[in-house]
Amino acid sequence: MIRIDRLRKYCEIKNRYKEVIIINPIMTGGLIPKETWEKLIEENWLNVGYSVCFDCIKGQSSLVSKPPIRDFLSEVAEFLGGDIVHHTFGCRAAQFAVMRTISNYVKGEGAEDYANIVLVDSLCHYTTVIAAEMAGLRLAEVPHSGHPEYRIFADGFRQKIEEIKSKTGKLPGLIAVTHVEPYHGNMNPAEEIGKIAEEYGIPYMVNAAYTAGIIPLNMKDLHADFLTASAHKSMASLAPLGFLAASHEWAKRVFEESKVRTELSGRSFKNKIPNIFGCSIGGIPLISAMYSFVHVVKRVGRWEEELAKTRWFIREMEKMDGVHLIGEEPHNHHLLHFETPIFWEISKRHKRRGFFLAEEMIKRGIVGLQRGLSRHIKLSLYGLERDQAEKVRDAFFEIAERYIKKFNLDYPVP
Amino acid sequence: MIRIDRLRKYCEIKNRYKEVIIINPIMTGGLIPKETWEKLIEENWLNVGYSVCFDCIKGQSSLVSKPPIRDFLSEVAEFLGGDIVHHTFGCRAAQFAVMRTISNYVKGEGAEDYANIVLVDSLCHYTTVIAAEMAGLRLAEVPHSGHPEYRIFADGFRQKIEEIKSKTGKLPGLIAVTHVEPYHGNMNPAEEIGKIAEEYGIPYMVNAAYTAGIIPLNMKDLHADFLTASAHKSMASLAPLGFLAASHEWAKRVFEESKVRTELSGRSFKNKIPNIFGCSIGGIPLISAMYSFVHVVKRVGRWEEELAKTRWFIREMEKMDGVHLIGEEPHNHHLLHFETPIFWEISKRHKRRGFFLAEEMIKRGIVGLQRGLSRHIKLSLYGLERDQAEKVRDAFFEIAERYIKKFNLDYPVP
Repeated sequence: MIRIDRLRKYCEIKNRYKEVIIINPIMTGGLIPKETWEKLIEENWLNVGYSVCFDCIKGQSSLVSKPPIRDFLSEVAEFLGGDIVHHTFGCRAAQFAVMRTISNYVKGEGAEDYANIVLVDSLCHYTTVIAAEMAGLRLAEVPHSGHPEYRIFADGFRQKIEEIKSKTGKLPGLIAVTHVEPYHGNMNPAEEIGKIAEEYGIPYMVNAAYTAGIIPLNMKDLHADFLTASAHKSMASLAPLGFLAASHEWAKRVFEESKVRTELSGRSFKNKIPNIFGCSIGGIPLISAMYSFVHVVKRVGRWEEELAKTRWFIREMEKMDGVHLIGEEPHNHHLLHFETPIFWEISKRHKRRGFFLAEEMIKRGIVGLQRGLSRHIKLSLYGLERDQAEKVRDAFFEIAERYIKKFNLDYPVP
Repeated sequence: MIRIDRLRKYCEIKNRYKEVIIINPIMTGGLIPKETWEKLIEENWLNVGYSVCFDCIKGQSSLVSKPPIRDFLSEVAEFLGGDIVHHTFGCRAAQFAVMRTISNYVKGEGAEDYANIVLVDSLCHYTTVIAAEMAGLRLAEVPHSGHPEYRIFADGFRQKIEEIKSKTGKLPGLIAVTHVEPYHGNMNPAEEIGKIAEEYGIPYMVNAAYTAGIIPLNMKDLHADFLTASAHKSMASLAPLGFLAASHEWAKRVFEESKVRTELSGRSFKNKIPNIFGCSIGGIPLISAMYSFVHVVKRVGRWEEELAKTRWFIREMEKMDGVHLIGEEPHNHHLLHFETPIFWEISKRHKRRGFFLAEEMIKRGIVGLQRGLSRHIKLSLYGLERDQAEKVRDAFFEIAERYIKKFNLDYPVP
């Protein structure tokens, strides 16, 4: 028998980051508005795991009307410009559903022109690579322009399609583009790429994990067949939750119901969708997404203000000698990647080495820099009030100043 | 632009079942203890989606030490008798990981003796069927004994293995057994089946969605290579969350790290595990599981008391004329399935037809009967205090009495 005493520590786990300014770019779009968590508590949604299943009649959470999940998914579809939307266990599970669909599609009749290849941007998120691996699709990559802008051009997709065509005699089975890529926050030319996909007749998925819920977008404008979204990354929701939006045409395949009939017991599960594990449950993350939805729709309408704040912050940071933004200029997303030679110099002399920077920020109540990194940093000010954004800037300046003086570095004090 | 006005209803969603007695058998093992949800609120874990990722260094939630996820998973491994445990997006995702592993295994070198077949009990949960479908495994089923006990015997597995062997010349690639099946709450002879699996050298998975966290068990005692668990079904956790436990030998395969190296960008993701989407995030469900763990370990130690209450309730229910338990006798699990001819008779005369029963129970603050069913009902009293269990019994008796009188039925008043 397991010893209870040893387990008590799990009852006492503290949240080290209860009241902090969060600047981790994977988190800022997933901060839960006060009204949402107050509602979650007030309505006691924390009292049971299967919280949305009380009034499930059909055995499929997306069809539940109390709470209004079915209606909500229609609204999310309109919001994303898709025809049909299902919730998933995160954007990664949505991508997997697409990849599995394509993997089966290219093996089927009438798809002889398509190879078992997914063509991606070379800065796609790791979950895209993993989803392809899970579904048994091979990856082909479109190159980026390298340092310092790391841009992806739509024309690169055309070239690569032609290259695949001449090598294999077939088209890629799928083009998958990361709407905003996770390394530098570059916005890829998803619409232009969509036109190329359309021209060649190649199914097209846009991974909008960093944009759906942040930036106005419409998958029809992007000429996309599939759009994948992350609710905990960009739609102010608890994890894990994502959405998969599809066109009517592709929805038939990606949301196809189970076809198995068991040999002996003769059971079939016609409301269950294999690509999303039959039913994706939802639970408290889905409730949180519903409570946050108005907030999310409204904030997307204020994206230009967010972008202005982000660009202001870039200019401020670049006042530090040698600090500069990596990625496209002008920048179009809240995810920022800076080269910070000043902090790299400090790290060489600091007893905490590269860890000093994240630790100094935490001391100032600012959390989210990757621990150990000082030469390059990634951060986001999304959702912060102007005074908080100024506090973040001031913290960087203060830390630089402190150590320039302490180590007598040949850098101007910012 | 989507109209905000129309969306306000999502901010106002009410929990219709805030303060009720829950008797839905998928829910009772997933009721969140007061201490857990108080801690979730007190520590403000509702404030951000990626709540466990602040101190992630290696890009894999199962390796995080703050909060102590890595340690926790070791404890869960000990609790389940496994060597290695990872958390997953629910038991369904854990089963899929196993099925995908086997699907790849039987295609590989050295596994020529194994067919692309998973042998299951014919009362397995639908998620087992869907997981096999997702992974491209064919299903073969072991029959049950039919009405009224619906038992599965270990010997049926031996017979079916021999049948598959003589038909295909190969062994099934996997035996997957539902430890307690979801239709009648029968406990399958998992240990005996495990010995048969071992004898033939067939990989063996036990789906413990209804038992891990409820009943003392140890996968080594069951001779299992894999054990799948549902945290929101049976470990007092928020959804979606599951666990996959594996032996050392199989852990190497099922938790194998990503092998892809992208052609152009040369990226590889060595801490990412494809079978669980790279990383299964965790989020607030995982935090809830950690807070609830002591409670779960303790309650498993009190299983005999729960079982005594369950058996008492069966005897009470069977005092109603014609009502009797379907499934094995004596019963060994909290999931109960009754035939209730008295309620069926009432439903024929009631204007709400079969819906009357669930609705009458809800009026009495008791929630969880499937709406529309009156001839057969499924319920669970797991975790209820004795006075609450009596309240449930009394509610059934009252409803029967009321309508026996109202419709002048030829049934004795209970």
